[in-house]
Amino acid sequence: MKKLVLKLLAVYTLIGCAVPHKAVAQMALDNSEIEASMIKALEWQEAHPIFAIAPTDWTAGAYYTGVARAHKTTKDMMYMAALKNQAYNNDWQTYNRLYHADDVAISYSYLYVGMNDKRPGFVNLEPTQKFLDAHLFEDNIWKSGKDKTTSGKTILWWWCDALFMAPPVLNLYAKHTNQPKYLDEMHKFYMETYNQLFDKEERLFARDMRYVWKGNNKDEKEPNGKKIFWSRGNGWVLGGLALLLDDMPKEYKHRPFYENLFKVMASRILELQPEDGLWRTSLLCPEAYDHGEVSGSGFYTFALAWGVNNEILDKAKYQPAVKKAWQALKKCQHSDGRVGWVQNIGASPEPASADSWQNFGTGAFLMAGSEVLKLK
Amino acid sequence: MKKLVLKLLAVYTLIGCAVPHKAVAQMALDNSEIEASMIKALEWQEAHPIFAIAPTDWTAGAYYTGVARAHKTTKDMMYMAALKNQAYNNDWQTYNRLYHADDVAISYSYLYVGMNDKRPGFVNLEPTQKFLDAHLFEDNIWKSGKDKTTSGKTILWWWCDALFMAPPVLNLYAKHTNQPKYLDEMHKFYMETYNQLFDKEERLFARDMRYVWKGNNKDEKEPNGKKIFWSRGNGWVLGGLALLLDDMPKEYKHRPFYENLFKVMASRILELQPEDGLWRTSLLCPEAYDHGEVSGSGFYTFALAWGVNNEILDKAKYQPAVKKAWQALKKCQHSDGRVGWVQNIGASPEPASADSWQNFGTGAFLMAGSEVLKLK
Amino acid sequence: MKKLVLKLLAVYTLIGCAVPHKAVAQMALDNSEIEASMIKALEWQEAHPIFAIAPTDWTAGAYYTGVARAHKTTKDMMYMAALKNQAYNNDWQTYNRLYHADDVAISYSYLYVGMNDKRPGFVNLEPTQKFLDAHLFEDNIWKSGKDKTTSGKTILWWWCDALFMAPPVLNLYAKHTNQPKYLDEMHKFYMETYNQLFDKEERLFARDMRYVWKGNNKDEKEPNGKKIFWSRGNGWVLGGLALLLDDMPKEYKHRPFYENLFKVMASRILELQPEDGLWRTSLLCPEAYDHGEVSGSGFYTFALAWGVNNEILDKAKYQPAVKKAWQALKKCQHSDGRVGWVQNIGASPEPASADSWQNFGTGAFLMAGSEVLKLK
Repeated sequence: MKKLVLKLLAVYTLIGCAVPHKAVAQMALDNSEIEASMIKALEWQEAHPIFAIAPTDWTAGAYYTGVARAHKTTKDMMYMAALKNQAYNNDWQTYNRLYHADDVAISYSYLYVGMNDKRPGFVNLEPTQKFLDAHLFEDNIWKSGKDKTTSGKTILWWWCDALFMAPPVLNLYAKHTNQPKYLDEMHKFYMETYNQLFDKEERLFARDMRYVWKGNNKDEKEPNGKKIFWSRGNGWVLGGLALLLDDMPKEYKHRPFYENLFKVMASRILELQPEDGLWRTSLLCPEAYDHGEVSGSGFYTFALAWGVNNEILDKAKYQPAVKKAWQALKKCQHSDGRVGWVQNIGASPEPASADSWQNFGTGAFLMAGSEVLKLK
Repeated sequence: MKKLVLKLLAVYTLIGCAVPHKAVAQMALDNSEIEASMIKALEWQEAHPIFAIAPTDWTAGAYYTGVARAHKTTKDMMYMAALKNQAYNNDWQTYNRLYHADDVAISYSYLYVGMNDKRPGFVNLEPTQKFLDAHLFEDNIWKSGKDKTTSGKTILWWWCDALFMAPPVLNLYAKHTNQPKYLDEMHKFYMETYNQLFDKEERLFARDMRYVWKGNNKDEKEPNGKKIFWSRGNGWVLGGLALLLDDMPKEYKHRPFYENLFKVMASRILELQPEDGLWRTSLLCPEAYDHGEVSGSGFYTFALAWGVNNEILDKAKYQPAVKKAWQALKKCQHSDGRVGWVQNIGASPEPASADSWQNFGTGAFLMAGSEVLKLK
Repeated sequence: MKKLVLKLLAVYTLIGCAVPHKAVAQMALDNSEIEASMIKALEWQEAHPIFAIAPTDWTAGAYYTGVARAHKTTKDMMYMAALKNQAYNNDWQTYNRLYHADDVAISYSYLYVGMNDKRPGFVNLEPTQKFLDAHLFEDNIWKSGKDKTTSGKTILWWWCDALFMAPPVLNLYAKHTNQPKYLDEMHKFYMETYNQLFDKEERLFARDMRYVWKGNNKDEKEPNGKKIFWSRGNGWVLGGLALLLDDMPKEYKHRPFYENLFKVMASRILELQPEDGLWRTSLLCPEAYDHGEVSGSGFYTFALAWGVNNEILDKAKYQPAVKKAWQALKKCQHSDGRVGWVQNIGASPEPASADSWQNFGTGAFLMAGSEVLKLK
């Protein structure tokens, strides 16, 4: 029987994520199947803890953001149990570099638990508050441009991933504590990043200044001569925008900026969706590593589905793309629940494989599922 | 294959826990099947940690009491490994409210490990001793009736669940350390609770003073007009009594009180057993939520089987009920090991579902299995 | 379906580890099957934590040495994730008896992570260094022969298991920090143990002085009258030798001693291999408990395969034995990944069973697989 399972698994893996799925977009999705896939992903990930530096780092931050979104949609206590466990085991701490957006991503899950668990004395948001105050209101080497170790770090959020790590946390914290000043500060730093990294022509974010062309022969290029736009990097931004908009006050003065940016990027991402539903790690040079990648694609699927569900994106245009993407994402999940085809930790397009996994990839998968479940 | 499994699972779930199992009581039980069910329950629960406030809270207390009982019967090292892990990870601490019986329930498992592991320096029962001494011999707001936050808390163990949480621990501690004074003090407080909450006519415990009728129009009633007797609440008491009697000296002067109470309650619980084997969350208004519930039923099954195995209850009368209950409990376990149909944390009858689970429900399941295995 | 699985499992267990596997040595091994078995073993073990005294004790030390070796061969990130988790959760601590070789075995995994993870500030080898310095260069009751609690402890490494626990760590530490003095000190203490416990006639190690014959009527004997040579005990030595040689400088002055000892023991172990491939817990009285045992056999399989792969042992002579042993080891793995037939913690031959498991048994299985994968 083991042999049979291995063979099935091998076949399963071979058909992989690169098969074109024609007409899939017309198929109805089965919500109980989606929920079962999501729970299996959660269970597998909980059984396979992984981190880059610590259980409070950004990888866990992105993963547990996905778990929180899955709970928000389904109310399945499996998600809440996992959220409370990690918060308790992490003692509600952020990771420790107060100047680094990555290290507060975990607080999205703490805030979510805080807004949903009413046991007195259980939730502790003090470390989050301490981090956010230092991050926003105290000087640091990136803000001040005094960082000497690498070039280009002249702003707080100098890499586009940061727009997923910190802004949704600030936004949720502002909402939870009813202190709009955190949202205003967030906007200030967001605009710095937008101004440095958003390519208006391509309607995509460069990962950081290394990938912004200066018009000289040092400009980094794809093999096909185009600019380098990283799928996951743009996934962080577009997924982060959906998170932001979901909890941002409707009347917030800068909301139109975020809605507009969301729509502009969404339209570009839709244009770039490959036939089989999943985006490649390089958005403008998909042929470099010609297979779907789950972390970027998961964030896009989440964001596009959120846009449809919230009537910010046109349903007729976006819903088929979302359904196709979800069907393809599901094919990247192994039968034991593992979500494969996740590009490893990095900063630019690299290949993935059926076996490559990361907790943040599972997070992206859960985020996608959480909004696909709400499609009508 | 995943689809097939999902379908099988769906069918499995549908047949659920409400199917009448005629003639089941005559069937022989297969011990290796029971053991396999129990191990699967343990493995699932270990992979899905959950708590109310902390890993040392009463939910873990009840769960690991079940794990300890499972080990006591089977000697399977899987249980001991889990017991030692949690004790080590909890650093042998109780939870922190020294006036609250809930917070020492976890010490049942610590004591059990202490009585079975002989590595010098490994076991630490100091936090337990500190808790018990403060709990019994120091004043607190409940004992003194000075608690102002809610009505009715004029005794130490003002809710019937407490009779599971603290007395078996005190009893085991008295035995392990050979200090009968802990047993005598236990008896004093037990009697207070008995006098307040035991309904001699119904032979059941009210959960707390809110459910004891005072003969005015504020009395809480079931939809059918009857008094509210909560299944799990009475399960805590009856299951706790079996634990108590199991380790109480045969010659202890108050032992007849406990034996008698055990027999009186057992006979009532037997009368109230529904046709399909599992008790409803409301004992006197089973039609309110007309499906079996696993936590209460698990504790009853444990207690009745223990009574049969120890010749305190009549085998001919009780054994068929126990076997029927176990067969029905087993049907509440998902194929992956999860024990469903557990009413969530609460204080009165509420519905459960195939998917609702809690670690203490798994504990009740393990306790039931640990005595069903010993049936002859 | 559950019943079917149980039946399959039962059959599986029955055929167990004592079936003769003729012609198996001629069969080709399938590396993807080996890798799948190893990952299942890892996953099962990670889901079933167990320890003797603490998660940093020698049982974890041996297990995570196996995980490290599995990663070294396969580079599968599952292993590295597990290694980093435990190192982080253990805060890079050894266990606390600085005179006890057991308590530094865990540092093999820390050193391995340290040599493979380049994140600044993540790895902390200070506790390891502190332990090794105290262990080698400070006086202690064993070294000084002042231990009064048991007889025979007149040297630092008075039991043969110690040759697995400390020497490979010292060897790796010397290599990693480029400090040959640790290797020289290691050699000094290694020779003490060799001189006390190695039986030149039998070419095997006595477990400790209790098992070295003094020629009087107190000499411990097997039922068949022979000396007691424990399979796992010799597995610790031979497996430890392969670990040592793997990282010992080719030009190290005492290397010939270790190579020679490795070859002498290997030839004896080969002679003693039972027909079905797995060694019994008693090497010279196999009929005492006549079934294969996995921890000793796993270490032997690792060592012999390593010897073949590194051209220290004759391929034609040893490779068939290795293949036969691996096929038999695989049969001791349950379908859920658990590695059974592991003798419990002990110091002399005792029986095992299909269900008996320990993390160090899983470690031995992973070590075996890690070298079997490299056979050509």
